[in-house]
Amino acid sequence: MKKEVYSNMVIAQSGGPSMVINESLVGAVLAAKSNKKIGKILGARHGIAGILGDDYADMRKLTKTQLEAIAKTPSSALGSVRKKPTVDDCRKIFEAFKKRKVGYFFYIGGNDSADAARIVAEEAEKENYPLVCYHIPKTIDNDLRSCDHTPGFGSAARFVASAFKGDDLDNRALGGVKINVVMGRDAGFLTAASALARENKNDGPHLIYVPERPFTLDGFVSDVKDAMKKYGRAVVAVSEGIRGEDGTPVAALFAKGEKDSHGNLQLSGTGALGDYLSTYLKANAGISRVRADTFGYLQRSFPGVRSEVDAKEARQAGAAAVKNALQGKITKGTIAIVRAKGKKYAVTFEAVPIANAAKETRSLPDSYIAKNGHDVTRKFIEYASPIVGKLPHSELIP
Amino acid sequence: MKKEVYSNMVIAQSGGPSMVINESLVGAVLAAKSNKKIGKILGARHGIAGILGDDYADMRKLTKTQLEAIAKTPSSALGSVRKKPTVDDCRKIFEAFKKRKVGYFFYIGGNDSADAARIVAEEAEKENYPLVCYHIPKTIDNDLRSCDHTPGFGSAARFVASAFKGDDLDNRALGGVKINVVMGRDAGFLTAASALARENKNDGPHLIYVPERPFTLDGFVSDVKDAMKKYGRAVVAVSEGIRGEDGTPVAALFAKGEKDSHGNLQLSGTGALGDYLSTYLKANAGISRVRADTFGYLQRSFPGVRSEVDAKEARQAGAAAVKNALQGKITKGTIAIVRAKGKKYAVTFEAVPIANAAKETRSLPDSYIAKNGHDVTRKFIEYASPIVGKLPHSELIP
Repeated sequence: MKKEVYSNMVIAQSGGPSMVINESLVGAVLAAKSNKKIGKILGARHGIAGILGDDYADMRKLTKTQLEAIAKTPSSALGSVRKKPTVDDCRKIFEAFKKRKVGYFFYIGGNDSADAARIVAEEAEKENYPLVCYHIPKTIDNDLRSCDHTPGFGSAARFVASAFKGDDLDNRALGGVKINVVMGRDAGFLTAASALARENKNDGPHLIYVPERPFTLDGFVSDVKDAMKKYGRAVVAVSEGIRGEDGTPVAALFAKGEKDSHGNLQLSGTGALGDYLSTYLKANAGISRVRADTFGYLQRSFPGVRSEVDAKEARQAGAAAVKNALQGKITKGTIAIVRAKGKKYAVTFEAVPIANAAKETRSLPDSYIAKNGHDVTRKFIEYASPIVGKLPHSELIP
Repeated sequence: MKKEVYSNMVIAQSGGPSMVINESLVGAVLAAKSNKKIGKILGARHGIAGILGDDYADMRKLTKTQLEAIAKTPSSALGSVRKKPTVDDCRKIFEAFKKRKVGYFFYIGGNDSADAARIVAEEAEKENYPLVCYHIPKTIDNDLRSCDHTPGFGSAARFVASAFKGDDLDNRALGGVKINVVMGRDAGFLTAASALARENKNDGPHLIYVPERPFTLDGFVSDVKDAMKKYGRAVVAVSEGIRGEDGTPVAALFAKGEKDSHGNLQLSGTGALGDYLSTYLKANAGISRVRADTFGYLQRSFPGVRSEVDAKEARQAGAAAVKNALQGKITKGTIAIVRAKGKKYAVTFEAVPIANAAKETRSLPDSYIAKNGHDVTRKFIEYASPIVGKLPHSELIP
């Protein structure tokens, strides 16, 4: 016998914010508002913490103008959380849902958030709570297995590529070595996007280090020396997640060991990795002018710097989740973004079981990494360019 | 007897790049092209290093389209240098100028570059070399005594304010303390500009620390605790140049002592100050989630993020230098940007003797700093807003 599903819905945001996660929120809310099956539209503040604390915003009260302005505002408008729900949390969530007559639950986030939604979905089955549960993809890291690319990546990649474009011009002016540390715990997509900054001859980044290839200090010193010989300067992109040959993150050497409830080590919000590499290079490569910047949280929340393709797709992903949840073919799902074959860029949004998105991350494919291990391939550029959009032109004096 | 002045001109860029230093270059070149008194227009690459090395770009060869594209490109298109000329350098410069029949010299840069131009100008007098020499103001630090504000500041301030706007939204989502370290060796203008990010109630930055007020770790811990109590979170703007009560830069505790030929300690291109404050706060304020980012070089070279008022004034400053150099009333000059009195924002560009700009820096006036020492006043906001321009609106969920 098919269980009755309550008509009210809860939507929430989880994990690291992005430039376009509010587009997904607004896409889902607008889709829900336009469908009579949905009753209340409750925005839980700070993800599952808001459900456990009965802290909701009434999303129906927001006007179209407000919603459109929220969509353009960076970061997670409902607040976020990094919390892996326990079985006990899930029971409390279902009690809270029952009280509020909630039958639909949408959770916007990355791998850990997908995993949290999967846990809630599976516990709902076990507990016989009638819940339609959808994860809506978001991560600037671009490492969800279920998606060709994830909402949030295009805009963050646009920030990274723009930053490298400006910083490479800066390095042209004053010379030396410039290291920029880019976000991406496990996957090198965002660091690889630095290559989109290249436009003119000899433009940087001249070296790109991703977590998918082992990083050695000796190799680094040798690569930088080669670049200095070739270009008279060197701009270097380094992922915060680079690992040694044994798989240990290089940043683990300095991190104080702070971990969240998903077991992730703090990598962002510190300049330690860049400073370590900079100091090492000064001491071991005989180069005096070495600078290191860590792009940090600006990558995911800088107002105005966003990819319009990314923004549009983020909204479509939110709307697709609501549409598929109401169709009911898949009741515990996530939205896969699938790229059409052929030369013209196009994507479709398909509902797939939630387990497809959860936890395990996707790495930069081998075909996107250059043979030398410290650059990307043409294939990566072709993959990423339409998602990131065209960058401002830079004109050099011949 | 009035000495004959050669008709050829040399223009060059010096010191840290900015978003609009190429606007000044193009403003000066276009003004020179439109005046028959000027012969060759030579762009020296990497400042006085290019003069000493006879390395020039022929600026007359650039088309209007190329020049306009260069104007919009961040960083110093001619390359830059940090070099204080010795008396011996000056003699070599005059020999080089004589060989190239150079009678006009324009040097675009900040305090140190103004000082370099002053040295060249004074040595020219002593050596009887007939030189019209103009400094064209540029510094994101906004600390030239001769200017109400300097070209480059508005755009860098726009980057800083935008970054804080996004980062404050990020902090709203995930909570805790976020420290952002902002450029500005001696003056707090750029750090103060973080306050322009505020739009909605309780928006950060909640604390602003500038070099003009002594910084103590005890005071810092106490201020952050107060902010946490009041807002449940804290976004903190810290100048890279903050000093202890004895005037020693806090960053001097970690810096490896690298100095340039003007005697400046390296402050940028390292995350050490932010990391130190973050670690100290975790240990002494009982707050677990503390993150620190250092904005670094992105502040001066991020493509697309620029203030249109700043860009326009940078170009006008370049043009004004050429115009005044040719008028000949002041032969060793700099361009002062003077703000008109009254409510409507307007500026004029006036030639003043070069000594007015050189070396000594301007600090944030007392009237711009709040009594508590860790915020700005309404007066500062009124001063800076028209230079920075309106920021993107951020909409919160009520």
